[in-house]
This record gives sequence, C-alpha cells and structure tokens, in this order.
Amino acid sequence: MKIAGILTIGNEILQGYTLDTNAQSISEELNKRNIKTTIHLSIPDDIFKIKEKVDKFIIKNYDYIFITGGLGPTHDDITKKALIELFETEIKFLSDRHTIISKKFNKVNLPKCQSEILAISNPLENSIGTALGMYFKFKKSEIIILPGVPIEMKSMLCSYLDDIKKIRKVTNNVITINTCGIYETKLYEKVKFFISKNDKHIFFSFLPSYEGVKIRLTALSDQANLNKTKNELVKILDDYAYGIDKVTLEEKVSNILINKNLNLSICESCTGGFISKSLTDISGSSKFFIGSVVAYNNLIKQKIVKIPKVTLDKYGAVSKQVSEKMALNISKIFKTNISIACTGISGPEGGTKEKPLGTVFISIYYLDKIKTKKFIFNVDRKSHRLMTKQASLYMLWRILKEI
Amino acid sequence: MKIAGILTIGNEILQGYTLDTNAQSISEELNKRNIKTTIHLSIPDDIFKIKEKVDKFIIKNYDYIFITGGLGPTHDDITKKALIELFETEIKFLSDRHTIISKKFNKVNLPKCQSEILAISNPLENSIGTALGMYFKFKKSEIIILPGVPIEMKSMLCSYLDDIKKIRKVTNNVITINTCGIYETKLYEKVKFFISKNDKHIFFSFLPSYEGVKIRLTALSDQANLNKTKNELVKILDDYAYGIDKVTLEEKVSNILINKNLNLSICESCTGGFISKSLTDISGSSKFFIGSVVAYNNLIKQKIVKIPKVTLDKYGAVSKQVSEKMALNISKIFKTNISIACTGISGPEGGTKEKPLGTVFISIYYLDKIKTKKFIFNVDRKSHRLMTKQASLYMLWRILKEI
Repeated sequence: MKIAGILTIGNEILQGYTLDTNAQSISEELNKRNIKTTIHLSIPDDIFKIKEKVDKFIIKNYDYIFITGGLGPTHDDITKKALIELFETEIKFLSDRHTIISKKFNKVNLPKCQSEILAISNPLENSIGTALGMYFKFKKSEIIILPGVPIEMKSMLCSYLDDIKKIRKVTNNVITINTCGIYETKLYEKVKFFISKNDKHIFFSFLPSYEGVKIRLTALSDQANLNKTKNELVKILDDYAYGIDKVTLEEKVSNILINKNLNLSICESCTGGFISKSLTDISGSSKFFIGSVVAYNNLIKQKIVKIPKVTLDKYGAVSKQVSEKMALNISKIFKTNISIACTGISGPEGGTKEKPLGTVFISIYYLDKIKTKKFIFNVDRKSHRLMTKQASLYMLWRILKEI
Repeated sequence: MKIAGILTIGNEILQGYTLDTNAQSISEELNKRNIKTTIHLSIPDDIFKIKEKVDKFIIKNYDYIFITGGLGPTHDDITKKALIELFETEIKFLSDRHTIISKKFNKVNLPKCQSEILAISNPLENSIGTALGMYFKFKKSEIIILPGVPIEMKSMLCSYLDDIKKIRKVTNNVITINTCGIYETKLYEKVKFFISKNDKHIFFSFLPSYEGVKIRLTALSDQANLNKTKNELVKILDDYAYGIDKVTLEEKVSNILINKNLNLSICESCTGGFISKSLTDISGSSKFFIGSVVAYNNLIKQKIVKIPKVTLDKYGAVSKQVSEKMALNISKIFKTNISIACTGISGPEGGTKEKPLGTVFISIYYLDKIKTKKFIFNVDRKSHRLMTKQASLYMLWRILKEI
C-alpha cells in the first residue's frame, strides 16, 4: 500500500484563526484510492521550516507528498520561494496560460506569479481560481503542490488523482454505520458481545457526536467480510441504524418522502429554521418540501399557526399540547400529509423548575395520526438546536419506514 | 514568548473521516495568551508513533505539549498505554473520583479506565464527559493530555489554562477586519497603497470566503499601533467593513434591531430557512425576531404570503416583483417594521437563459420603504445558499445603520 504525508502551510492555521480542512479532504480522497495517509503536519509561513519539513518527508520516502497553502498573490505567500531554494530550481512563467486565465477571469492586472511554477514541475490547472498547482517526482516521492483555498484545492486534487495519475477508487475497506436515538454507552453494551466475536479481522471504532454515534468497521485482513458483518451488526442495532457511510437522516427522510409521494411542512420554534434549512440543503427537496413557519414569537403561534390562546396560556408554549397543535395545524394550513413541529428551551435562559433548560417537545403528524416525544437535552444552545433537529428527523424516519 | 506543539491522535483523522478541530481550538486559546503554536501534528492510533512523536516534541523543548485523543473506554484508545511506556510510569486509579463520576452520570458500569491516569501526572477533571485529562512536567516541557471529544477538550483546556496555570489572556497583537460585499481583488486594490505605507510594523493578510473577505493585521513589533491602523483602514473600507475580530453580521444586525427596538420577519425561498436559522443561532434573538415563512413551494407564496398568482405567472417566482411582494407581505402579515425576503435558483437545476443558475433577488422592507438587489452567484448549491444568506444580512445591516 502506498503512503502519503500531508503538509499544510499557513500562519493563520497555527494561530488558530483558520481551521485546516485541506488535510482531511486530501486524506479522504486518498483513502478512497487505497493510499494511506500517515501524517498531517501544519507549519507557519516560514521558509526555513517549509524547507526542513519537506526535506524530512522526502527522506522518509513517502510515495506522495501533498503540500497546500501559500501560493496566492499576496506578500505572505512564500511556499514557492521555499521550494525553489530546497530543490535548487528556478521559476518558470507560463505566458500563454497567463493570457488565457486573465481573459477567463476578466482580470487585466492578474499578478504574473499566478502563472509561475517551479521549472522542474508540471502545471496543475485550476478550474475555479487563478493560482496554478504543480507536481513533480523527486527521489522516491511524487510531490504535489496545491493552493490553500479548499474548493480550488479539492478540484485540483481530484483532477490530479483521476485524470493525470488515473488512480482508481477501490472497493472500500471501511464501512460506517450511522446510528441515532441511542447513547454511546448503551450502544456499546448492545454490540459488545458481537464485536468481541468479530474483532479478529475487523477493527470497530465508535465516533459519538450530537447527531448520533457512528460505528466504523475497518477491514484488518483479506479474510474480513465487511459487508456480511455490517449486515449482522445493522440487524442487532435494529432501528437505531439509519444509514451507511455518508448517508444522512436528511437524505433518508427525503428519499422515502419522494418515493412514497408524500409532502412535508414544518413548524419550528426553538430550532428557528434549522430543520427546514437542513432538509433544503439537499438538492431535490422541492419534490416533497412545501414550506414552513418559524413561529418564534407566541403571537405567530397564535395568529399564523392558529394555536388557541387558551392552550398557550394553560400549558405554556413549551408543552405537548402546543407541539401537537403546531404539527396538526401546519399540515392543515400547508395542506401536507406529513408535518414536523418542535417547541423547546434551547437556552441559555428560560428554564423553570417544571420545564428545565433543554426541555423540548417534538411532534410528527402523519396521515391523521400524531406522535409526540419529550426530551431534555442538557447541553448548550447550539448543541440543543442540533440535537433537536436530529431527533426530529430521526422520529420522522422511524415513522416513515412503517407507513 | 513560550511555544507549544500540538499532537492530535486518531486513525479516523488520518483516514479523512474526522475533521480535526482540536488543534485549531487549542492554538486559538494559546494565541489569546501569547503562547505561540509552531506545529500541528496528527498521527494514527499507533503506540510506536505516539511514543516517537511525543519524544521528539520533548527533545525540541516545547514549553507546552498538548496531546488529544485516544483516552476513551473502547479498545482503540491506546494513548495512555503509549505514554506509560514512553515515560516508564504506571497507571493510577482514582477510586474516589470514580465513585463520584459514576453517580454524577448515573452509570453503574462505568469502565475503570475512565478514572485512571499516569502515576506521574495530575488529574484534569472533565465537567462534561467521563474521561479524565492529565498534566505533568517532563524535562523542560509541560505535557497536557486531553480527550478527543471537542467540547470536553475545550472546557478542560480552558480550566487548565485559566484555573490551574492562571495564564491570563493578553491584549491582542492581532486584529481582524471583517468585510462583505466586495471581492478580494477589488478589496486589495482599495487598500494596496495604505498597506504598502504601513507594512513595516504590521503584517496584513487576506482571508477570503463565501461570507466575505477578512483582513488580518498582525503586529510585528512594539512600534505597531494596531488600533490606529485598524481605524484608518476601516475608514478606507467604509461600509464594506462590518465588524472586528469574531463579530458576525448576525450579531451586528441583532444588536441594531434590539437597540432601535425594531422587529423582524423573514420570507425565504431558496435559502429554505437558512437566514432564520443563522439569526436564531444567537441567544437573545427572540427580542427582535418574530418569525418567518419558508415559502419553498409557489403555492405557499400564493396562499400564505399572498403573492397574487398573476404576479407569479407574469414575472416568475424568481423576480424582483415577487421578491418585493414577499418582503412587503411578510412584514404586513407578521406585523414587523423590518423584513427580509429572497428568491433564487440555488441549483443544481432550474436555470434558464434569462435567469441563469445562481440568480437571486433579495429585498429588504424597512419602515415603508423597500430595497431590492439582484445577484448572480455562480457557485454550487451550498455556497449559493451561504452567499445569499450573507448578502441578505449585509444589505439589512447597511440599511439599519442609516435609519
């Protein structure tokens, strides 16, 4: 198996101003092609350090060395300068390319450096921005230099891997099972015995987050039968397992709604539009999603969603009664067969003794039936909204599966 | 100035399944306290590699060495094992702590390892989860070991820095100016001359994203007058500069709405709830945000937002006329003095010759006036929604400043 090292360059990364997503993107693409990343390293815009670290990577004989960042036109971009010194080469200006790219982006004064590469390298074209990438072989390593802007980096990486090197994606040696509705400890109890029987050829890891726990199965040898084990595990996990690999609850729910020709409306309170936003992130959501009301203020609950004032006064806005009425009424007003409603206290203020901070009611209306659940998510505001969003989609998915 | 090295451990990071946010969080906190991070390193769950890299960090005399990941209860958590071997120490079980934490989290069978630390270390308590952290001095380095779950890691990190080490935050030697509504090239043109006059003591860097371009000013010497330079630059940037450091457009807009005692409603189409979601991310948004309608389907635009069918038919849903009517009507229906409306084609499908993919109309209604702008954001669906969200808030901010 070929191995790779990734070097990301930028003061802003080390200062904590910028989250480096490039190392992850590169590893992900390499992993799909059976190339193993064994190191991520981030260093500042410092000529000496860049030279030192790239040199070390070469000594370690990585098959691939990926370098990102510091190729832009501003004065802090010094990656090329460092590499010229290290590889004792010079700059090559691609004037034809410069003319073409200046025209394409309609830039009269595009800095010359945007079309300059190391003389020993091949250019790697950028279909999105102006900075050129480059690649070349040095000793045992293939060195690939890419700009730091994530979207440009990713597109150039894929064109390098797919078009230039023709490195095909392989059948995955990793499968991830996505679960929701169950905490890590309980989940681990549930599958402990199964894992202990199967951990000779497969490595199991648990990745908890506020959207659920993922169980990752990695094949350790050719004798591992990932698919079979995955299927058995999914059976044990039952309804907690909603999807495999990158499949999200949003996608699961969308697909069922489209396939069953159902339509959906939403009435959100504490989530403030988050559920609608996350479902419309998916292209094609217009096939089932009609619309929603964010009834943040109680007057909107009354006036638009037609929750009787007496109900609000008697039970409070955060109550089973109001939540159910929200779901029921939004489906009537928006004329949909399915609806989601939620009302809760995301904080940081607003908790009471009977209804502590974190309390939330979620209702799903479906084909003249209604289901409501109460949760207390004792977490910060941001996580509370995320957990409420996810719990709503999980409840909806469970129901949609059965109808 | 003290320096720090950060080591994050986890196969899932190197495989590209998990985005490592811990290195950034740690650097950010250290930066606030004038401790300079000079390296981020991620390696797999591999005893040999962990030992090798921690050893190298110690040889390099980092003042602080932060290690995260691999402290959990599952079998793939081997950080402690590696460190025990490296430091030739043993495990110490804190039984009192174990009793307390089992009770607190109501867990009968909490694994013993969750209360085990290296015998040479001090425990670092976890107020959110069950895994203990630890810290100790070794040669010239202070070594701090933290769990990989970001929210636990961050809270323990801050309690280590603030409570245990009492490392105070310092006046910042970095200021960031956040801009919107202008592309990087044009922005650079605008400030190039100013920068060239001021770059002796201050380093300027440009950080573009779909939410705008940030200009970061870093003091290079004691003679740098960051605040004065920032003020001058903000003056040149005029209305493009909306905030300093972590200030978002959401916060700016919220504060003005609250201070001027105004209230807001939103009618979203292509953004599907994103604008409402991002404003309600802020706690206290209930002081000005009344609610919104996500009119995804044209029937909702007609029936709920009362856009006449003739207007929709004549001009199309993505038009200045419909956008304005959406803003106007939502403010009437929700009885607010301000409203935002947007309607556009986020893609990947739906573009026409006259209205290409990426076209979007944004309207702001304010105190009986209305302002509409047309944009063509020629980017992918996700970025289109993000740019539309940001452009809406930027338009609103510009208007709110004047009224």
